[in-house]
Amino acid sequence: ASTVSAAHPNLVITAEDVEAMRQAVKQPGLFQQTYQQVKASLDEQMLLPITVPVPKDAGGGYTHERHKKNQYLMYNAGVMYQLTQQQKYADYVRDMLIEYAKLYPTLPIHPQKKSSNVGKLFWQGLNEAVWLVYTIQAYDAALPGISKADRDSIEQGVLRQVALFLSEQSPHTFNLVHNHGTWATAAVGMTGYVLNEPEWVEKALYDLDKSGKGGFLRQMQELFSPQGYYSEGPYYQRYALMPFVTFAKAIETNEPERKIFEYRDGLLLKAIDTTIQLSYNKLFFPLNDAIKSKGIDTIELVNGVAIKYGLTADPQLLSIAQLQNQILLTGDGLKVAQGIEQGLAQPYDFQTKVYGDSASGDKGALVILRQQAASAEQAVVFKATGQGMGHGHFDKLNWQFYDHGSEIVSDYGAARFLNVEAKFGGRYLPENDSYAKQTVAHNTLVVDETSHYNGNWRESEKHYPELLFFADNDQVAVTSAKVDSAYQDVWFKRTMAQLKLADDRTIVVDIVDANGERQHQYDLPVNYQGQLIETNFKLAGNTTSLTPVGKANGYQHLWLKALAEPQAGMNKITWLNEENNRFYSYSTLTTAETQVLFTQTGANDPDFNLRNQHSFILRVPTAKLHTFVSVLEPHGEYNPSKEYTLNGSSQLTVLAFDRQREIDVVELAFVDGGRYLLAISNGKQVTSTSQSTFSHQGQSYTFQGRFSLLQLD
Amino acid sequence: ASTVSAAHPNLVITAEDVEAMRQAVKQPGLFQQTYQQVKASLDEQMLLPITVPVPKDAGGGYTHERHKKNQYLMYNAGVMYQLTQQQKYADYVRDMLIEYAKLYPTLPIHPQKKSSNVGKLFWQGLNEAVWLVYTIQAYDAALPGISKADRDSIEQGVLRQVALFLSEQSPHTFNLVHNHGTWATAAVGMTGYVLNEPEWVEKALYDLDKSGKGGFLRQMQELFSPQGYYSEGPYYQRYALMPFVTFAKAIETNEPERKIFEYRDGLLLKAIDTTIQLSYNKLFFPLNDAIKSKGIDTIELVNGVAIKYGLTADPQLLSIAQLQNQILLTGDGLKVAQGIEQGLAQPYDFQTKVYGDSASGDKGALVILRQQAASAEQAVVFKATGQGMGHGHFDKLNWQFYDHGSEIVSDYGAARFLNVEAKFGGRYLPENDSYAKQTVAHNTLVVDETSHYNGNWRESEKHYPELLFFADNDQVAVTSAKVDSAYQDVWFKRTMAQLKLADDRTIVVDIVDANGERQHQYDLPVNYQGQLIETNFKLAGNTTSLTPVGKANGYQHLWLKALAEPQAGMNKITWLNEENNRFYSYSTLTTAETQVLFTQTGANDPDFNLRNQHSFILRVPTAKLHTFVSVLEPHGEYNPSKEYTLNGSSQLTVLAFDRQREIDVVELAFVDGGRYLLAISNGKQVTSTSQSTFSHQGQSYTFQGRFSLLQLD
Ligand SMILES: [Zn+2]
Ligand SMILES: [Zn+2]
Repeated sequence: ASTVSAAHPNLVITAEDVEAMRQAVKQPGLFQQTYQQVKASLDEQMLLPITVPVPKDAGGGYTHERHKKNQYLMYNAGVMYQLTQQQKYADYVRDMLIEYAKLYPTLPIHPQKKSSNVGKLFWQGLNEAVWLVYTIQAYDAALPGISKADRDSIEQGVLRQVALFLSEQSPHTFNLVHNHGTWATAAVGMTGYVLNEPEWVEKALYDLDKSGKGGFLRQMQELFSPQGYYSEGPYYQRYALMPFVTFAKAIETNEPERKIFEYRDGLLLKAIDTTIQLSYNKLFFPLNDAIKSKGIDTIELVNGVAIKYGLTADPQLLSIAQLQNQILLTGDGLKVAQGIEQGLAQPYDFQTKVYGDSASGDKGALVILRQQAASAEQAVVFKATGQGMGHGHFDKLNWQFYDHGSEIVSDYGAARFLNVEAKFGGRYLPENDSYAKQTVAHNTLVVDETSHYNGNWRESEKHYPELLFFADNDQVAVTSAKVDSAYQDVWFKRTMAQLKLADDRTIVVDIVDANGERQHQYDLPVNYQGQLIETNFKLAGNTTSLTPVGKANGYQHLWLKALAEPQAGMNKITWLNEENNRFYSYSTLTTAETQVLFTQTGANDPDFNLRNQHSFILRVPTAKLHTFVSVLEPHGEYNPSKEYTLNGSSQLTVLAFDRQREIDVVELAFVDGGRYLLAISNGKQVTSTSQSTFSHQGQSYTFQGRFSLLQLD
Repeated sequence: ASTVSAAHPNLVITAEDVEAMRQAVKQPGLFQQTYQQVKASLDEQMLLPITVPVPKDAGGGYTHERHKKNQYLMYNAGVMYQLTQQQKYADYVRDMLIEYAKLYPTLPIHPQKKSSNVGKLFWQGLNEAVWLVYTIQAYDAALPGISKADRDSIEQGVLRQVALFLSEQSPHTFNLVHNHGTWATAAVGMTGYVLNEPEWVEKALYDLDKSGKGGFLRQMQELFSPQGYYSEGPYYQRYALMPFVTFAKAIETNEPERKIFEYRDGLLLKAIDTTIQLSYNKLFFPLNDAIKSKGIDTIELVNGVAIKYGLTADPQLLSIAQLQNQILLTGDGLKVAQGIEQGLAQPYDFQTKVYGDSASGDKGALVILRQQAASAEQAVVFKATGQGMGHGHFDKLNWQFYDHGSEIVSDYGAARFLNVEAKFGGRYLPENDSYAKQTVAHNTLVVDETSHYNGNWRESEKHYPELLFFADNDQVAVTSAKVDSAYQDVWFKRTMAQLKLADDRTIVVDIVDANGERQHQYDLPVNYQGQLIETNFKLAGNTTSLTPVGKANGYQHLWLKALAEPQAGMNKITWLNEENNRFYSYSTLTTAETQVLFTQTGANDPDFNLRNQHSFILRVPTAKLHTFVSVLEPHGEYNPSKEYTLNGSSQLTVLAFDRQREIDVVELAFVDGGRYLLAISNGKQVTSTSQSTFSHQGQSYTFQGRFSLLQLD
């Protein structure tokens, strides 16, 4: 059913692209700059002897790194051959592949083999597949400059062998609906196009037995939700995306009739958008085991944005490409460079949106609320997703808050110093399990100092939160979700609202209901970023000795800096974020029993592995039912350089909460006299035309739909 | 002896400037943008009624802030009158001054008077002088649009009265050789030019009795060192500079024959340069009670740079103006805007230099060592200055280190949240005295857990360190200083060298000699910025309880996180700076008795007033004499975004120290095989031709001058 092209290159870069690229490298501009940099660096490397060592080392070791380096060198040499038409670049690809063709047939399974996904050049088949994805592109580009005899040696000696090893000889991985399977099918399918093996393409797309039970299309079907969300979160999503968009682009080039980018309602293009949407100020939201400094400038997303721009010419993608600040030497990369240079870039439309989790999209959700505040964008991340497998955190109904460019209420992310040998070999630190994954490291309910699902991710995988509702208009976004499986006899529910009030005041309202059959201790931590400025209640600081808050489940890592027992009512905690120099106040309604614990990471951390993180924990020592009602309010500005401080204290004067049957009523008032009523209808069947009625101070109010925000006189 | 001009304006802005400025506001560009912003903001304010309240409140209070606001409104209206030639702006200045002319004669001394420097409009005469500096410029600009009758009312009712109050009626302040005196003389002198009172100018310059014992010239003579260093440090220097350059510019305009900018070998122009030099990556070195976010973009230095550029047209100043990103609506501001727009800006020449302290320049010194490292500039700040009065810290021979844009070995600066009401009214916090000023908050020798001069600044003011030597070439800069007055029976000496080795490796060598007559405990703290990565010795971490390191002198604020007792020899501590993602290793030679304490601020801090600061303290529990020999080595890069880590461990393999009579010999070797000998001659009389001889591993070496750096094979 497939037609295979005889032109080369014809995968991600096409012969037609090459024509335009050859013109572009002669003109000053972004594309030429990249070309010159890549060429200079490659020319330097080509002065060194070709090195194709016998595989020996595990990840990070010499032979591992060398074979990785070779794949990039060949790739760049292939592209450079096309751009310069200088034979030396084709010769370089040929010479290196001839070495691989001599070596590969002699190789057993890698001596350091790891897990079931074994390789020959590498300890993992995953790396072998990545190697082939780059190498087949290199070969495709250099092919017109390689003699028939050499082509035969290379194809027989290495390319076919690797492709067969990754497919027929590794059926478990190849058919697997998992990121590793995607790399394998991409590698084999692309090789099929170049070597004119349509059957390989069919198997890559539909499983070795062509049943469609496995293969690339099944992976597209199952690894993303309909909204393009990948269950491990954006840090992993941008990595998972790479083989998808690369192979899809090759399919589009060779067989546009497959309409691969239209598959599943344009799933891959949605997934690229989602990866961008799940970021703030260039960095990905740190869901699960994320390294917090990863963001939209990663190479995987540079690829995704270029390919999507090539297909759609959406000018908003250019503003992302500007932030990425990296141009690819591909046809799409050229289009991006030209678009930027022509001044076509438009701001990216970051949206308030619900991202369903799981293949069906209905097993929990990630909800992003965004609002334009006075001079910068604000974002609320509400995580009501499934577990996200082994890298998932025990953070059901966690929230994060961003304002004015900075993280304000945060997630610790992963406890890891990536590749720093002295820090546990650069791997996930023991504190990743003992602290970062635990519920108390998050901003969500902890019952009896134990983590959700007792910290058992396989158990958690079986369950997911129920998204109760989401609704919004220009001023208000409201969402609510419930979890009944994280604890034996406790279910809990969280409703969050982002409100834009008069005077560009934007706040977050948070209502957490804990419902136990028996008495429990309920903790609600808030991990805040900044320096504590004031509380409107007395702090009992531990000034001459510190001890850990608890013994396990992350609590053993928290020093108890102060314990407060505020009077019942509205209590406030104000901090100053020192990155954006803004103030934030958390106002919460407490009962007479509520305690507030002020903590700092660092206990039971003999190797100084944990970063400094401060939190306060609202604690209800014993209750069956409890409702936490809180408001987070950004306010004011600290400008020591210009020597002024504006509104350093909370402006909220009234916070009151009333539950009338299924309606939650929150009253808010501010020092400037602004008074508001927020009403949220929690009914299951509420539609946009449903009528709800509540009373407040003797007056009756009726509203339509899920919520109402009234400004009182 | 003085001629007074009849043209207006004729102070900082001249009639000639105005011609050019009127043209410039018609052309698109930086100057026009500023003009439009200032005009829009002023026009909005001018819609509100003029408000000149009876003085009542202290600093920060309503009437205080209102009179300050009025001075800026009048100033901008005066300038706007000149630029637009619209009568309404002159009327606005007139109307407000008429109100002041009615009010001022009725005023007693301000009810909230503070100290001996009293005011009428304000609680301090200082504010009154600042008010007049702005207001006389406003009047000078608006004068051509004000009727003779109104001028008389204004001059008699307020301008003359304020000038007389600040001079004849406040002789103590007016004649004072102090920042407050400078504002008073500037205000009165500038008023003298506008009101044609040459006698006032004479008194402003030479004291009320014209003896020259006080007055502006005496202030220029005594408040700065010959290198333009102001004893309180750059944070205060930029503030002190404002009245100096403003009045000097007015003198230059009216009486160029006084050659005020040539006075004392061009002192004021030097002082502007010095203020810029005492910064790194836009921020001032935080010496003494400095707010750390203050930098070269403060309005005082924007003024200084513009005025200096107007005089010198030095294109390096334009690169500073670009960083300041603020254009002034003055003739000099226009020149700056045009220079930038013409692309004339050149990089500023930040220098390795000795800044003598005190009027004579020989009572201690601040030494700045700079070196261009691989991709960024490095700076060492060595503070061998006098106390710097009441805002000084007890930090004799302290050092700070900057690399790759970030603070690496740091000074806490001031413990203060400027203007944040909740933090002790925005004033200096109690922790400023109890911690930030104390010696242990610095990176210098602490004897027996007591601060230098027992924390008595008046005692410290009587003494100063002795700068022993400074010498440099392209690869090496060496300096040394000694203090014999900070402790009763201990003197100490510190020698610091910044070395540029092969492969762009730049390191700092630090030798501290403590010499007591009796046994003492010697502590050498290093306040580092970053996350601890590794030590080559065992840490005994306090994992389940923390207690303060000590009881007083700042030690009560330090939690003891770990205590180590490393084996004698070269011991290493590596941290990762998370701002620039670079690694830093501190390698030090320890004896068998040396302990290393790892600390963190936060103990005895019930109000969470202290920022988190980490340090390690090298401790010699009992000794009469001890020499600390250490190397700080920047290395490697952490790039979690691109997923690589380079040289995460220290590259230094050998650190050895040998003292041969007056010669210190430091041997260094690195993993890449580079071996070096640094020899420093400590002799008192060493000149550039002196010969010194030392031996190393049986070989004899001779060198000329203060130091020698040899690369061994
Ligand atoms: Zn997490
Ligand atoms: Zn200090």
